[in-house]
Amino acid sequence: MTAMTPLAVSRQRLFPLDPGARELCAALYERACNHPIISPHGHTDPSWFATDACFDDALSLLVTPDHYVLRMLYSQGVALEDLGVPNQAGEVLVEPREAWRCFASHYHLFAGTPSRLWLDATFEEVFGLNVALNAASADHYFDHINACLAEDAFRPRALLDRFNVAFIATTEHALDDLEHHQMLAAQGLSHRITTTFRPDDVLDPDFPGFSNNIATLGEKTGNDIGHFQGYLQALRDRRSYFRSVGAIATDHGPIDPMTADLDPGAAAKLYQRCLTEQASAQERCLFRAHMLTEMARMSLEDGMTLQIHPGSHRNHNQRLLQRFGRDKGADIPTRVSYTDALAPLLNAVGNEPSLELIVFTLDESNYSRELAPLAGHYPALRLGPPWWFHDSPEGMLRYRRGVTETAGFYNTAGFNDDTRALLSIPARHDMARRIDARFLAEWVMEGRLSEDDAFELIDVLTSKLVRDAYHLDQRPLAP
Amino acid sequence: MTAMTPLAVSRQRLFPLDPGARELCAALYERACNHPIISPHGHTDPSWFATDACFDDALSLLVTPDHYVLRMLYSQGVALEDLGVPNQAGEVLVEPREAWRCFASHYHLFAGTPSRLWLDATFEEVFGLNVALNAASADHYFDHINACLAEDAFRPRALLDRFNVAFIATTEHALDDLEHHQMLAAQGLSHRITTTFRPDDVLDPDFPGFSNNIATLGEKTGNDIGHFQGYLQALRDRRSYFRSVGAIATDHGPIDPMTADLDPGAAAKLYQRCLTEQASAQERCLFRAHMLTEMARMSLEDGMTLQIHPGSHRNHNQRLLQRFGRDKGADIPTRVSYTDALAPLLNAVGNEPSLELIVFTLDESNYSRELAPLAGHYPALRLGPPWWFHDSPEGMLRYRRGVTETAGFYNTAGFNDDTRALLSIPARHDMARRIDARFLAEWVMEGRLSEDDAFELIDVLTSKLVRDAYHLDQRPLAP
Amino acid sequence: MTAMTPLAVSRQRLFPLDPGARELCAALYERACNHPIISPHGHTDPSWFATDACFDDALSLLVTPDHYVLRMLYSQGVALEDLGVPNQAGEVLVEPREAWRCFASHYHLFAGTPSRLWLDATFEEVFGLNVALNAASADHYFDHINACLAEDAFRPRALLDRFNVAFIATTEHALDDLEHHQMLAAQGLSHRITTTFRPDDVLDPDFPGFSNNIATLGEKTGNDIGHFQGYLQALRDRRSYFRSVGAIATDHGPIDPMTADLDPGAAAKLYQRCLTEQASAQERCLFRAHMLTEMARMSLEDGMTLQIHPGSHRNHNQRLLQRFGRDKGADIPTRVSYTDALAPLLNAVGNEPSLELIVFTLDESNYSRELAPLAGHYPALRLGPPWWFHDSPEGMLRYRRGVTETAGFYNTAGFNDDTRALLSIPARHDMARRIDARFLAEWVMEGRLSEDDAFELIDVLTSKLVRDAYHLDQRPLAP
Repeated sequence: MTAMTPLAVSRQRLFPLDPGARELCAALYERACNHPIISPHGHTDPSWFATDACFDDALSLLVTPDHYVLRMLYSQGVALEDLGVPNQAGEVLVEPREAWRCFASHYHLFAGTPSRLWLDATFEEVFGLNVALNAASADHYFDHINACLAEDAFRPRALLDRFNVAFIATTEHALDDLEHHQMLAAQGLSHRITTTFRPDDVLDPDFPGFSNNIATLGEKTGNDIGHFQGYLQALRDRRSYFRSVGAIATDHGPIDPMTADLDPGAAAKLYQRCLTEQASAQERCLFRAHMLTEMARMSLEDGMTLQIHPGSHRNHNQRLLQRFGRDKGADIPTRVSYTDALAPLLNAVGNEPSLELIVFTLDESNYSRELAPLAGHYPALRLGPPWWFHDSPEGMLRYRRGVTETAGFYNTAGFNDDTRALLSIPARHDMARRIDARFLAEWVMEGRLSEDDAFELIDVLTSKLVRDAYHLDQRPLAP
Repeated sequence: MTAMTPLAVSRQRLFPLDPGARELCAALYERACNHPIISPHGHTDPSWFATDACFDDALSLLVTPDHYVLRMLYSQGVALEDLGVPNQAGEVLVEPREAWRCFASHYHLFAGTPSRLWLDATFEEVFGLNVALNAASADHYFDHINACLAEDAFRPRALLDRFNVAFIATTEHALDDLEHHQMLAAQGLSHRITTTFRPDDVLDPDFPGFSNNIATLGEKTGNDIGHFQGYLQALRDRRSYFRSVGAIATDHGPIDPMTADLDPGAAAKLYQRCLTEQASAQERCLFRAHMLTEMARMSLEDGMTLQIHPGSHRNHNQRLLQRFGRDKGADIPTRVSYTDALAPLLNAVGNEPSLELIVFTLDESNYSRELAPLAGHYPALRLGPPWWFHDSPEGMLRYRRGVTETAGFYNTAGFNDDTRALLSIPARHDMARRIDARFLAEWVMEGRLSEDDAFELIDVLTSKLVRDAYHLDQRPLAP
Repeated sequence: MTAMTPLAVSRQRLFPLDPGARELCAALYERACNHPIISPHGHTDPSWFATDACFDDALSLLVTPDHYVLRMLYSQGVALEDLGVPNQAGEVLVEPREAWRCFASHYHLFAGTPSRLWLDATFEEVFGLNVALNAASADHYFDHINACLAEDAFRPRALLDRFNVAFIATTEHALDDLEHHQMLAAQGLSHRITTTFRPDDVLDPDFPGFSNNIATLGEKTGNDIGHFQGYLQALRDRRSYFRSVGAIATDHGPIDPMTADLDPGAAAKLYQRCLTEQASAQERCLFRAHMLTEMARMSLEDGMTLQIHPGSHRNHNQRLLQRFGRDKGADIPTRVSYTDALAPLLNAVGNEPSLELIVFTLDESNYSRELAPLAGHYPALRLGPPWWFHDSPEGMLRYRRGVTETAGFYNTAGFNDDTRALLSIPARHDMARRIDARFLAEWVMEGRLSEDDAFELIDVLTSKLVRDAYHLDQRPLAP
């Protein structure tokens, strides 16, 4: 049962079965592959690119940082300790090889998941492996991957070149000093590798340490955060600091997409109550909601694209949080609504064609009901690509089928990989390209698009939209 | 890039790709085409049919009144002024030809939308155009369409004949004098062209001018609207006035589908509070909710079909509303629920097989969860066809796939085009027929229906259901 | 129109149309058919199996107890009286043959529904009928089926053998004396036919007669239910009593999936308020929510699988309830959410791999948004199969497509038929097997699974998961 079996990653995976559609899909996919990868939103570690050091081993690169992998194994009774995940004290209780064997022997659990498709593609295309991962091949995998990682060709920047990544953005909190991004800027690389401004720590009164964070923000920017205007100026200054190392976007992760547009006096009073921790839960929500509109106004000033990723109930499993910390696969989506929630922000700035505002969702029921109609009306608004649990073949098909008829193609924002798993980046973009090619091919065969439309649209979906959405269109891209 | 290219509208568009299903689909579609068009709910202008005057030009017929078209162009930064949309002062800032060129040069934005499929079918089948619309062909289109519109064959009634429209209903508010419908009745045409009673203006205390509207209602009907019974009698009289020019249905557009069934004393008190503008927001909702049940009781008396179209957040974009008015593509759906909301009304009259109550939704999550189970239980209830944003190939497929297994086919209501775009009527009905034929063909090939079932059902879906739902079954239909 | 026509139940029904996928599907389906039926959750009548008496007639076996059939006919204006459904006084107003003719003459209404597929399969495969049911064949059906039912081969236990049912569980309320299950246990059959503990009557303060029910619970178990600890012990004892006749699971049907985890003092106080009917509506909800967590703790002690079936608005139609009682097809789903609602229970016991907690939904919008992420994280949690209105070909496909990419296959629970319609059990399991085979075949053809994976997974989906979920894995199963 755990003998060595071939690893067969189909060249035509995810293509449609109808012979005519399949042939057209292949041609469209081939055209998509001409474009470099643009990765405008993700969570890779900037130190990788700044230092360009070799990666340690297969486990710490492919397993322990990947919350998709951890949660599936955990859901089937595998202890995170047995996978080599460090606990909150930083202790690791098993050897990496042993943890890798545990992962390998449970690899069948991933059947049917995008993780399996990404990993198999990575194994074959990045590492040249040709047997399937299971208990029997675990050691072979571990040794082979580790040997590769010791080579210069597998250093982070070499991988960016090999993967044809023209642009990649990481994500840092507002108070981050951007040490590694400063190094990258000093090396002249910030046009290709940059950061994203993620200010939840200084915008959300429910964020741990909010008041202290604001004090630090004041210190770092030299503004008097004791009053609202000083706070706004501090935020402007911090955005500017992020832009100085190439940042082109901000990102926001509220629990819901509520926005507000208070008059300046009311906002200033609310700020005081939040800062001094006198605000009620409702007032804290309202402040967070108002600050999203302030951020949108600043985006109109400084040209940074604004991204909203709402609706994740973070750290649902308290025991896991206490033992292992955040981002271990215990964030669970909740139901959200956009139509009423976004109205204040959109009435404030949604009519501005020069603003780029990208909204994501974990609640797919909003695709056809709220988000496609909103994106299909407001000039400033785009709908972001399928996110997180929905960044998958079925998720992408539901997205295209649910969104396109109302929003068209041009009110979407291209693809994001949104990943901390560097090696999965080409596999993730490849999956999106395959699904887009399939979707277009099927609609051509059904007489819903012309073949000319489809060849134009595959370029639009792969390249034009992401460049437009992040104002990358006029920038020369490496390599 | 903007050369003349052929316009190729596939004869087999929207058919399934499997060869067997495709052949059966073609046969079913051909059978559907034998039926005349019945359009029991829509928003065409009754003056067109009453006066039968020639249409002005391509722009005012095809672009400026079509909120689907306007919103897509607006979402991509096209100013409504540049499309020749009059502002609130009635001013138009560009020449029609210039506006048409603007439309034509942005026509690629519609790729993948039903608007594109409807328009292309209209261009080819109604106007005989054989090149695609783009910047290069803009003038050719404008001149050719305008020349056609000057011909008698393109007058409104001639188009109804050409489109094989046996019945069409417009929609007028309760206080409308129905001038043009009176003209049609005087010409003996009200069996074919009639109105629909849409009394939101006198039922919803949040409707602008509610109290004045009720006063006008009293004057028009000669009832004392100072007390609730007089108000109810005035509504009955007004329904009767609409029926006198052929109306067979009422239509209601509340923000949510809440219903109530108050005892007469409580309803009368609530009426007084609403009429005198003392009612709270909650009381105004309750009154609106109760009046839907009163309308259903009147439908039981007078046989008018009752339609509910809930869940649209109207005029989401305030700046656009102020500049251009309503119906410019800025109405956005919201999440609604039906199970608890409809319980009072359904417990009052839902067990009556002679009542025809048709519920629509913009929130597709209700198809399988609430609406199919409700329609699959209550004798009075039917589920309306996919509405507005969901009146599209994918929307129709989601509807059939989400509804049929629980509600069957017979608890649905046939197709509505619900349009103010007269020329799109044949294209919209054609799309519905193609999708129904496709759906039935696929289920036959999968052994879920017999071929005999499918040929019977295509007649049911195209003709029987709409006739039953609007009590048109015993009426001879023109032409 | 009602002549005799052949009944043609396709051997390849529900298989995919693509030739390659179709061939693979057939092979996978054939493999699934090697497994016996395991029916761990349903509502058949235990007296059938205990007494093994012949069934009365076609009507009382196939029509009057089947709420799927009743509601469809009722929705189209058929009076339940005309179908031979007894009213609350127990009166039946028509002869069985007459009622059967009424059913037969309306059988076309079921086109496209799973009821039609189940019934046709039953007619052909169980009764050997080869003409379609309609008005013309009604008497032939009635006579033929009744003649079959008089034979020994159609007694309940013979049917279980014929259907290859290895295990079946009925459902009884907590106060049920389990008379027939005691008979089955005395005959040594409780390893094959057993009950399920459904304690809504003693856990939910809104259940009719709650306080009296608890008093009865105290009497039956000899515990002092005047204090909370005695009540908990009584519940433990009652679970034990159910286990003594083979029960392996509990089942819970709250209106929503809310859970709570109160400290013991607060729970004890709340119990007193509920018992003495002083609790507010909110307190009653909270008590019900807390008791679900207590049940989960007891499951951890005694190994019983815990099933939650939330979200049905029972008895929506009051007139029907008054005239005919419960379970006549007037239960309507409502919108529910799980992420926040289940957090207290999951934080209490969700990390226990030995616990089996199965959650069902009538609100499919939760599949990809909440339930797959929860089941794909918590070791104790599995997602139950598509339930009730969604136990259908499209419902099952939506389930697999919406769930698999996030939860994988292994966090699901196999198939439940959940039926009171004994004869439909093989047809229902057959439908699930066909859809699973189809789903796997299509994903193999698209390169998303290997063929080896698929052949392993068809065994997993048909047999392993249900055995694991109900701790049947180590138990020898009959026959």
